Amino acid sequence: MPEFRKDPVVDRWVIISTERAKRPQDHAGNNEQEQTDSCPFCAGNEAMTPPAVLTYPADEAHPSNTTWAVRVVPNKYPALVEEGSWKRQTGIYESMSGLGVHEVIIESPEHVVNVAMLSETELEKVLHAYRDRMATLRNDKRWRAILIYKNQGAQAGATLEHIHSQLIALPAVPKEVFEEVTGAKVYHSSHGRCVYCDMINEEIGGAGRLVAEDEWFVALCPFASRFPYETWILPRQHASSFESGSNGDFTALARSLRATLIRLNRRLENPPFNYIIHSSPLDETENAYHHWHIEILPKLTQVAGFEWGSGSYINTVAPEDAARLLREATF
Amino acid sequence: MPEFRKDPVVDRWVIISTERAKRPQDHAGNNEQEQTDSCPFCAGNEAMTPPAVLTYPADEAHPSNTTWAVRVVPNKYPALVEEGSWKRQTGIYESMSGLGVHEVIIESPEHVVNVAMLSETELEKVLHAYRDRMATLRNDKRWRAILIYKNQGAQAGATLEHIHSQLIALPAVPKEVFEEVTGAKVYHSSHGRCVYCDMINEEIGGAGRLVAEDEWFVALCPFASRFPYETWILPRQHASSFESGSNGDFTALARSLRATLIRLNRRLENPPFNYIIHSSPLDETENAYHHWHIEILPKLTQVAGFEWGSGSYINTVAPEDAARLLREATF
Repeated sequence: MPEFRKDPVVDRWVIISTERAKRPQDHAGNNEQEQTDSCPFCAGNEAMTPPAVLTYPADEAHPSNTTWAVRVVPNKYPALVEEGSWKRQTGIYESMSGLGVHEVIIESPEHVVNVAMLSETELEKVLHAYRDRMATLRNDKRWRAILIYKNQGAQAGATLEHIHSQLIALPAVPKEVFEEVTGAKVYHSSHGRCVYCDMINEEIGGAGRLVAEDEWFVALCPFASRFPYETWILPRQHASSFESGSNGDFTALARSLRATLIRLNRRLENPPFNYIIHSSPLDETENAYHHWHIEILPKLTQVAGFEWGSGSYINTVAPEDAARLLREATF
Repeated sequence: MPEFRKDPVVDRWVIISTERAKRPQDHAGNNEQEQTDSCPFCAGNEAMTPPAVLTYPADEAHPSNTTWAVRVVPNKYPALVEEGSWKRQTGIYESMSGLGVHEVIIESPEHVVNVAMLSETELEKVLHAYRDRMATLRNDKRWRAILIYKNQGAQAGATLEHIHSQLIALPAVPKEVFEEVTGAKVYHSSHGRCVYCDMINEEIGGAGRLVAEDEWFVALCPFASRFPYETWILPRQHASSFESGSNGDFTALARSLRATLIRLNRRLENPPFNYIIHSSPLDETENAYHHWHIEILPKLTQVAGFEWGSGSYINTVAPEDAARLLREATF
């Protein structure tokens, strides 16, 4: 059974989950038919996953006989599980049961490996699935934070190539989320404004790191980008929780996210990447200081000793150059 | 010229260093002769690096005609440089000149690619070079922290395979170091003891994560290991600064470090890894709360969306299992 362990020096929980070591990996060199036969996320192989917790039906016009468009299933090799409630102090060490939810959002019934291949309508359904699962899980008062993220490409940590995202609901607010929300709160206390709203205004005002904008969303390379071509997508209108958006917001977000991913693919030849939805912890539904957004992190370089030792990052591509090159990567 | 940029939300500095994008990479498939001819770190190619800031002469008994055993040179593609002193506030953004020192410790005149291939005596000289550069650089009052780290293997971020480590002196204490020292200080305040001394005592006392021990050093897999087979080496006697050690300490450390790396190589078939020397910031030479140590981080898995979003880690190998398997990897 998984467990949380607290680092005795820094305020960080680690999940020890030996079950996850058993999960299968795609094998390189398989032909397409073999891939589809053995892929647990392809249509026809639904029995290879646990039963779905959410299914969106396929569009009637769908050319194949597939019945679904998006499925959300419990992760078969979960990092956390919905049972156990022990806490333990052993000598100087603190641990507790690995309580949480770990789900997989299967984004297409077909063996698509690049999310930018989805249409805007298909991607919009994926975003609806994110929203619906977040809205459902926030009713369970055991959870304090929900993380939704995508790993695309083996170098970005994906073990199966069929496009999917993951959702993890946690019983405590994790370090990175806590620091981000706290930083935003401190900024709001001293400036009376949301730091992300200020960021959007700077970039719309010509600071030079804007990738694209429309009436609803802004894509930008952040001033202190950790990674080459790091790109964030933020709603222009201040909101703290991803799942508070209206249907119209998700239509616009699907358009903006898809366009940004296509720019990255054009410029960087389909790079491996992670994206993470940054949304307020569940106890703080809507607030004036935190602003939900998506962070897209292309994986072009390896994180190395300097980064592990310092918590700082060396980025060899200026965000201004990255933004300009992404603006020029038209389609 | 490189610059530091402060993240406007979290307390993290990023180094934007476009010069570093120009650094050469080893090309796979070269034969040995080609590698040695083109490798800037091999004996005979000294002119391919900036002039050395420290050189240890070769042992007289050295079979080749090489004159040196270890060379420390300024990094030709530095992340930070020793000039510039500007600070700037542009809108909401804070930045400053990328002031610092970035050096490379070349650990052998020969084209060795695995540090465990060095003899204990050779590795001891590498440790002396670390100590000597730290002792010299701490006299320059511009630096607040010195990080020494090794990236071995392309997946661990090494761009040249010839064994080397890197040193970066920084004008501010970086986030990870600050958090570690602060955590240790808080623990000491509430317990009256050093958290690392307590950790050593727990493991020597049979907590089950000891890899090896001798009179001077302990190797263990930490309770809240972030990565499979993460292994730390700590001096049994409390000390805050790496460079405060005596010659005898470095003899023992070379033995312990080499033995631990050989265990990792045996168990994991020469994994890529990073190691980082964790030593107190320069303003706190010796103190009761922080305990210098080396953290060895094998790179067997990719850091993915969950880790980037949460600052937590999912580790699929229990530290107790890792320690047992490393204990059994005898030699």
